[in-house]
Amino acid sequence: MPTLNADQLRAFSSRIFKALNVPKEDAELVSNLLVEANLTGFDSHGVIRIPIYARGIKMGAVKPGADIKIIRETPSTAVIDGGWNLGQVVAKYAMNVCIEKARNSVIGLVTAKNSQHAGRLNTYAEMAMAQNMIGIASVNSASYVAPFGGKTKQLGTNPLCFAIPSGKEPPMILDMATSVWARGKIMVHLARGEELPEEIFMDPDGNSTTDPSWYTKGGVLRNLGGEIAGYKGFGLSLLVEILTGALTEGGVSNSEEYRSRPFYGGNGIFMMAIDVAQITELDQFKKRVDNLLSSVKNSATAPGYNEVLIPGEPERRKKAKRLKEGIFIEDKTWGDLTSLATELNVKIPN
Amino acid sequence: MPTLNADQLRAFSSRIFKALNVPKEDAELVSNLLVEANLTGFDSHGVIRIPIYARGIKMGAVKPGADIKIIRETPSTAVIDGGWNLGQVVAKYAMNVCIEKARNSVIGLVTAKNSQHAGRLNTYAEMAMAQNMIGIASVNSASYVAPFGGKTKQLGTNPLCFAIPSGKEPPMILDMATSVWARGKIMVHLARGEELPEEIFMDPDGNSTTDPSWYTKGGVLRNLGGEIAGYKGFGLSLLVEILTGALTEGGVSNSEEYRSRPFYGGNGIFMMAIDVAQITELDQFKKRVDNLLSSVKNSATAPGYNEVLIPGEPERRKKAKRLKEGIFIEDKTWGDLTSLATELNVKIPN
Repeated sequence: MPTLNADQLRAFSSRIFKALNVPKEDAELVSNLLVEANLTGFDSHGVIRIPIYARGIKMGAVKPGADIKIIRETPSTAVIDGGWNLGQVVAKYAMNVCIEKARNSVIGLVTAKNSQHAGRLNTYAEMAMAQNMIGIASVNSASYVAPFGGKTKQLGTNPLCFAIPSGKEPPMILDMATSVWARGKIMVHLARGEELPEEIFMDPDGNSTTDPSWYTKGGVLRNLGGEIAGYKGFGLSLLVEILTGALTEGGVSNSEEYRSRPFYGGNGIFMMAIDVAQITELDQFKKRVDNLLSSVKNSATAPGYNEVLIPGEPERRKKAKRLKEGIFIEDKTWGDLTSLATELNVKIPN
Repeated sequence: MPTLNADQLRAFSSRIFKALNVPKEDAELVSNLLVEANLTGFDSHGVIRIPIYARGIKMGAVKPGADIKIIRETPSTAVIDGGWNLGQVVAKYAMNVCIEKARNSVIGLVTAKNSQHAGRLNTYAEMAMAQNMIGIASVNSASYVAPFGGKTKQLGTNPLCFAIPSGKEPPMILDMATSVWARGKIMVHLARGEELPEEIFMDPDGNSTTDPSWYTKGGVLRNLGGEIAGYKGFGLSLLVEILTGALTEGGVSNSEEYRSRPFYGGNGIFMMAIDVAQITELDQFKKRVDNLLSSVKNSATAPGYNEVLIPGEPERRKKAKRLKEGIFIEDKTWGDLTSLATELNVKIPN
């Protein structure tokens, strides 16, 4: 059960990916983003994924160094074929194209198909935000979520991410699954043997359950909104499927074209960048955003709450803490990583 | 307690607005959209609003016939000043501009400030959908919703609407408040003396309550997602404030610039249209959307549910029913409408 600092873990991860013939720059990108997920508290999207990516590379389903091609294009849009390269490489490429389109045409819209797992979305939305653009990113993935009223897996957890440029206030970065929770939170409860809250999970017969052990026995995630408003999360999830599965030409999660792929079905990717300064006065925009965020932040709290947290704030806090205290890797993950390293003849950190 | 057919009600409404010096075409537009809301089951956005609009017109806050001006423009975007005209008139104008922008630049993005209440959003998103575009519409409004963890009114109910072109399947039209419920549903429970479900409403001290009578005593709406995921609804609501209050130049709900306005603060409007055929093969897109909607629709149901409903489907059913059976108007609303008609010397339907 080691605790590593971020630099050690990044370097270790990069060595593994380079040993798997991932180009140096891509190995470092993927390693940076996986470790960033660990730093911000999303261990389910962190280095735990390395052995999975490695398996995909070894079986030829994940294709490091594959050409990424623009297959359709207008001055403001592009459809990209990622060639089954690592998702982080495809998504970064796609967002760079999107930002360039937005610079020239105010709004950029880019979709990508044939991409492997792109990791957390905030990174890509924040690339646009750093250029004073509103950044939007979304992906679909294998089905784990039932439609509202249904009991079968039909939809990915289908996250939506928005990053908004602000002035002196820390920015709002909303990165949310449209299912009530992401899969990672179920996995964490399962690993810790903790009961789930109500309205999160169902057994394969559609009965509500608080037992996370159904995760490995066909359990199904529910929509954001629960019994009283789950049709909203369901609707947002359908929207994501359409943007990432139909507009990309990659296929929606529950389709034969998606399910028939080897390995995982990958991520259909949808991205937008909106260049604020070409639409309105950037300073005024930022001032309004600052005022909104600070007044909301400073509002009186409800019983049981100590403060109002702006989306993105919990991640920033977790990162500050883990940069100082290091990243804890659980035995199972560490065992998988060190076996892989040994097999690839890669140096393991002390 | 009369029950009127849609034509009667539309004609009655048009007569009232024309008597209030609303231009004929605008009187008919507003009347159509209010009655459409009644038909689809959203009585809170129906003819119940006529006396409120009339009050606004009489006090000079709502300005029928006011010039609607584009104050900033690029080939793909526009910022519009609605001149405090009726919101339906401003929003329809804005979506027409947006569709034209999308036709020329693939994506159109239009914002509008100084607009009065625009009613339900589906109408505008569906205008884009009818052109084989993905239609998006959003508005902010006066604050009734607390931030997640807070207890004070800081955010509008801040709806988001998406209309997606499909092929042979009925289209998905998602029109949802980012609060757990829209205000109208609280008002209906109050009118009927029915208890609310948990996690919908708070008293002004931030205590959860199921008593709708708090609505008239400072009660506060909660975010989509409840205790376990309300930060998501909160984040979506912030996004809407930023798109409709900052990108429009109109001001966010909780700002002094918004709150200082006479009458209501109006709707900041955000719209997008995305021309599918310029991004990908339209037929393929529609086929993928059809397959998604039909497979989701036909999925096995969970215990307690008879079927899966696609967003937009409940409204279509309600409309078919009310077109046949008529629209029931409760005594209070009918009394208000007939007093107004008498005052304006307008013919009341039998």
